[in-house]
Amino acid sequence: MSILVVGSVAFDSIETPHGRVDHVLGGAATFFALSASYFTDVRVIGVVGEDFTAENEAVLTRRGIDTRGLEHVAGKSFHWTGSYLKNLNEAQTLKTELNVFETFAPKIPAAYENSDFLFLANIDPVLQANVRRQMPNVKMVCGDTMNYWIHDHRENLNKVLVGLDALLINDGEAKMLADDSNLLRAAEKILATGPKTLVIKHGEYGATAFFSERSFLSRDGKPGLTAVPFRAPALPLDAVVDPTGAGDSFAGGFFGYLASQPEVTPGAFKRAMFYGGVMGSFAVEKFGTERLQQLSREEIDRRFSRFREISHLD
Amino acid sequence: MSILVVGSVAFDSIETPHGRVDHVLGGAATFFALSASYFTDVRVIGVVGEDFTAENEAVLTRRGIDTRGLEHVAGKSFHWTGSYLKNLNEAQTLKTELNVFETFAPKIPAAYENSDFLFLANIDPVLQANVRRQMPNVKMVCGDTMNYWIHDHRENLNKVLVGLDALLINDGEAKMLADDSNLLRAAEKILATGPKTLVIKHGEYGATAFFSERSFLSRDGKPGLTAVPFRAPALPLDAVVDPTGAGDSFAGGFFGYLASQPEVTPGAFKRAMFYGGVMGSFAVEKFGTERLQQLSREEIDRRFSRFREISHLD
Repeated sequence: MSILVVGSVAFDSIETPHGRVDHVLGGAATFFALSASYFTDVRVIGVVGEDFTAENEAVLTRRGIDTRGLEHVAGKSFHWTGSYLKNLNEAQTLKTELNVFETFAPKIPAAYENSDFLFLANIDPVLQANVRRQMPNVKMVCGDTMNYWIHDHRENLNKVLVGLDALLINDGEAKMLADDSNLLRAAEKILATGPKTLVIKHGEYGATAFFSERSFLSRDGKPGLTAVPFRAPALPLDAVVDPTGAGDSFAGGFFGYLASQPEVTPGAFKRAMFYGGVMGSFAVEKFGTERLQQLSREEIDRRFSRFREISHLD
Repeated sequence: MSILVVGSVAFDSIETPHGRVDHVLGGAATFFALSASYFTDVRVIGVVGEDFTAENEAVLTRRGIDTRGLEHVAGKSFHWTGSYLKNLNEAQTLKTELNVFETFAPKIPAAYENSDFLFLANIDPVLQANVRRQMPNVKMVCGDTMNYWIHDHRENLNKVLVGLDALLINDGEAKMLADDSNLLRAAEKILATGPKTLVIKHGEYGATAFFSERSFLSRDGKPGLTAVPFRAPALPLDAVVDPTGAGDSFAGGFFGYLASQPEVTPGAFKRAMFYGGVMGSFAVEKFGTERLQQLSREEIDRRFSRFREISHLD
């Protein structure tokens, strides 16, 4: 099944303990699309400026990604400058130049209207809701968000959360969204706001999916909702070269795998969590999207087996 | 098979967001022994003062723990005062009163000499080495340590590490011990100093065992050592009442289960990692050792199944 992703296509300038790169292809939609492209058909909606070259676009099209929804406008592309010198687990943003992204108004090409799955990458929740409305017939919708939207645009964000099949965020975002420092309680509060499933990414410690289960009696004695967890590991890596895009690559592996399955069963969902971790682990091995451009499905499945092996009890 | 544990038997005064307790039974050897007692015979070597009551000792003996190695001397018992108000994941030590523990010189009763397994809880590595020397025939030796010994008593600690079958420490201690912020590289450096296996505890994210594997070619192209990981999950809990002793309870479940097995196979080791997590998850549900005093093996095995269920891929 095909996935439509809407989000940023950008250039990143990044420094990490392993070196620095300037103005390399990045953006949430880019990482997501490349990652998901190893599993299923992917279509991108985004906006780029005049600095976005044919070679940049070929990075996507070589992976079979449909870029007809990538709007080219006058001006410069979104440019993010960040550093991981202080902390490899958390980016320090040095500069955010929105450029053409500032007035991004997603338009859905007619050819995309039959997309099966929809991924709303981390953009303004007003735009996320807008795209969601224009795709009433998609079978499954997943989304991402970040601290800025959680903190300053909560009301708009809530309208997006209500309609999500799965929300994918990290620990800090989950705790902020629920205003609770306990992860399980935070998960239950978030699930109560709408998403059917919550996937919380823990970086080098893997990720946890929380499935929403209606219960007759919840822990406080009232009918309510229980968050049933599933934990997927991460592979210990000897060098994390560049963490940029790891979360979006996780989302791409997760949702791409789900879209490749005949049915979204609990088993498929669990394997999707593992594939998410696998794609995240590849992404961080090189700067930018470099590693995601060179993979093969055999390589991915070998690493999937490795993930299973390092966490499997007979 | 029987386990001999040497370590602190103490009183703790603790405050957490869930309340505070004063002068409750604690200490690494206490948590370890209670936890391991659900799996196998446990013998304790430690020292206590006149404030250690018959009722305190009965907490151990009721669980069948052999306390003949618990020396009673004049003075007060070790007393630790700590707070988790600022950070539930890391204790802030408010006061450490070593008292009778300051001059602790472990003596091994004749009745303990046939112990099969030895656990060296977190004490002065000189004492750890001393006990190890007096027990030349034990089949397996595991140990713990902490930042203070890593930082200020490295040479003595190194002599202990050489003889360990498994070292159990947390993330911060591992990175400090190896002087490397990357966990996999840190693990390989630590394994190169002697321990056959390294168990790194990640708190709410579970734990990773790193098995030492000699390789013809390591990643830098020279013959060397590879750390082969195995990841065990933690159970998301809705309330962590008191994290004190979670690591020692993990060690007790881990080593206790191993001692209960006819053979220490890779499979047994993996299950032991899960049992470690299970016992740690119980320990934090109530203040001090309260929860560890009331368990049943059925309850433990039910939770073990739950750990398996939340991380098992078909």
